[in-house]
Amino acid sequence: MLKPSGIITILTDFGGDDYFLGALKGAMLKINPEAKIIDITNTIPPGDTRKAAFTLMNYYAEYPEGTVHYCVVDPGVGTGRKAIAIATDEYRFVAPDNGTVYPSIKNRGWKVYEIDSDRIAIDLRSNTFHGRDIFAPAAALLSKGIDIERLGPKVDDMVHLEMPVPVRRDDILAGEVLNIDRFGNVITNFTPIDLTGLKNPVFRVKDKLIKTKLENYQQASPDVLFYIIGSAGYVEISVKNDSAAGVLGINAGDDVIAVEGSPASGGLP
Amino acid sequence: MLKPSGIITILTDFGGDDYFLGALKGAMLKINPEAKIIDITNTIPPGDTRKAAFTLMNYYAEYPEGTVHYCVVDPGVGTGRKAIAIATDEYRFVAPDNGTVYPSIKNRGWKVYEIDSDRIAIDLRSNTFHGRDIFAPAAALLSKGIDIERLGPKVDDMVHLEMPVPVRRDDILAGEVLNIDRFGNVITNFTPIDLTGLKNPVFRVKDKLIKTKLENYQQASPDVLFYIIGSAGYVEISVKNDSAAGVLGINAGDDVIAVEGSPASGGLP
Amino acid sequence: MLKPSGIITILTDFGGDDYFLGALKGAMLKINPEAKIIDITNTIPPGDTRKAAFTLMNYYAEYPEGTVHYCVVDPGVGTGRKAIAIATDEYRFVAPDNGTVYPSIKNRGWKVYEIDSDRIAIDLRSNTFHGRDIFAPAAALLSKGIDIERLGPKVDDMVHLEMPVPVRRDDILAGEVLNIDRFGNVITNFTPIDLTGLKNPVFRVKDKLIKTKLENYQQASPDVLFYIIGSAGYVEISVKNDSAAGVLGINAGDDVIAVEGSPASGGLP
Repeated sequence: MLKPSGIITILTDFGGDDYFLGALKGAMLKINPEAKIIDITNTIPPGDTRKAAFTLMNYYAEYPEGTVHYCVVDPGVGTGRKAIAIATDEYRFVAPDNGTVYPSIKNRGWKVYEIDSDRIAIDLRSNTFHGRDIFAPAAALLSKGIDIERLGPKVDDMVHLEMPVPVRRDDILAGEVLNIDRFGNVITNFTPIDLTGLKNPVFRVKDKLIKTKLENYQQASPDVLFYIIGSAGYVEISVKNDSAAGVLGINAGDDVIAVEGSPASGGLP
Repeated sequence: MLKPSGIITILTDFGGDDYFLGALKGAMLKINPEAKIIDITNTIPPGDTRKAAFTLMNYYAEYPEGTVHYCVVDPGVGTGRKAIAIATDEYRFVAPDNGTVYPSIKNRGWKVYEIDSDRIAIDLRSNTFHGRDIFAPAAALLSKGIDIERLGPKVDDMVHLEMPVPVRRDDILAGEVLNIDRFGNVITNFTPIDLTGLKNPVFRVKDKLIKTKLENYQQASPDVLFYIIGSAGYVEISVKNDSAAGVLGINAGDDVIAVEGSPASGGLP
Repeated sequence: MLKPSGIITILTDFGGDDYFLGALKGAMLKINPEAKIIDITNTIPPGDTRKAAFTLMNYYAEYPEGTVHYCVVDPGVGTGRKAIAIATDEYRFVAPDNGTVYPSIKNRGWKVYEIDSDRIAIDLRSNTFHGRDIFAPAAALLSKGIDIERLGPKVDDMVHLEMPVPVRRDDILAGEVLNIDRFGNVITNFTPIDLTGLKNPVFRVKDKLIKTKLENYQQASPDVLFYIIGSAGYVEISVKNDSAAGVLGINAGDDVIAVEGSPASGGLP
């Protein structure tokens, strides 16, 4: 048994302007008035499960053991997709079965259960808002420490959403942009390990080369694009006091190429 | 006596960018540090009491008994409008007397009290921010279980804000758009009961007819406008993976007409 | 010793769309699962320490004694700027040493400590996200009541960010705009005390004169710009049901001049 922390984190694409958050938080609190609800973000672009998956990867493990992560970006609501609850040694997740949680836990042990609204006596009030009608009660029950097996039958697998990884083609590594953050930093999918085979790596975005590697922002010169290992563990392309994404005219999903640089171009020693 | 849940929900038009939320939440916590504050939304369009009323209707009853709903969209701040606290059997509300709460509780028993800042020793620090100076302390006191009668004198009535209901004209029902949500769904003011007299109802928006009724999103075909009973209990006009409001060029308050359709046009059997 | 309230307020420029808030809140809760986290705003314009300072001034004192204010607008992250924790008689603050907290506490007693990540066994995981890696754990420790001296060595001073104050030039007072709020109200840096030497003060913005002083919004006439002492304690320029900032074409930092008016122009008696 996992001891519940009482914390439920909320990740959705419901936006912050409508009644959706108010309704789903209430549905949680009616079942567990002691739950501590933590807003992560509700402005995932509608239906963008990859952005949701990337976001989840970067916060879920910060939380105390026994935290319930509610992750509802659900373009398939009201279709045949399953509603699932997932157990790892440390956490519980509730989500539509669309792969959002998979990248976070693929390298850990996990079990998946299909949430059965009959079994937990959830009144299914709509075909369009399972965030309120199924996932909120399920998260609240888990936050009270209910055994996950009571939510419904164990199933063998879940949808696998694979985050893109760099691919070697001849002497280049072809990667892509995972995310643009608020500051215009370009988060690529290159990890330091991916780059171990490349001497003095240089990044190419469209016709621009980013050659300067920095260890911290203090070293940056104005207007010079540079790269740095960011807080998510990936190569990020940045520029001092400006949006690198704006300078490069680049969006999530666009190509970034890593090539070997000459020693002279290799940034700081 | 109603046992307080300790929960205070917050609905405002204060936006999320200024100090307003920080100040009003602090004013609550200074009086009741144990209060559990739940953000609903703070981006009601400035002064839009109808949107606030629609939003409140769709979350207030999700909360545990004894919850205090703070609903401050207050275009009349600093004018003669009363500050009121409302009691129902299950909840407490604080709001300016502009009708925001009325549609949620009109069919229940309720009592209204005028909040008297002298009586509860609230220091009235401004004429422009009663959300901090009057409503926050009043909500905090109620969340501690203070008797609502101690906030001020009972008054006989409150402002009635009536949500628009469909009107029969000859053989049509004239309704309107209550809300556009983040996904571009068009929430009309037609309930299933309103439509009982119409065979195979068809909806007309400007020069477009919406004939297809669906039970869930799985049945939707790309680019085809359809209607469905949404999570708020009203007819919603939607289109798969797109904004129906955008396709229709329609806003809250615009007209929607329901007419009787031929059997052939009546959507799914 | 200051008894902790358990409350941590959060003020940042991290935006609401990325994983940043999720990660920093988790980093707090892992250390203190009992912490009560209160969102103030996360949409301070990137790096705008003056807006952060203005915002903080207007909420920090609303909170119960023993509250920890986390104030991380950090354009210098990863440079040599210190990470500091500040103690006053009533509160604790954590912030980069860039002056954000200074205007709030300059007239009180305060002590400053440099947060030493080694001393508190914080694992410094990035050079780019000290909001998660340093400030969140420090705030969480303070919220548990740890003695602030345990975070690191006492330092003599912090960066002083001085909010602009009106300057007398001949017979005018030259001030400026501190903030534009969501409603388009123009918050100037004139306090009532600044104006004591001016009879019937009139404000000039570009080529427009604002002569009408009101005590509350009820007195306002449509389309007439007026001024009022707002909830932050400054002269605010407003217009009924519209954005005064829009009407005036004015932004934070722009000039506002106060001059002596003729008795006839001096608003209400």
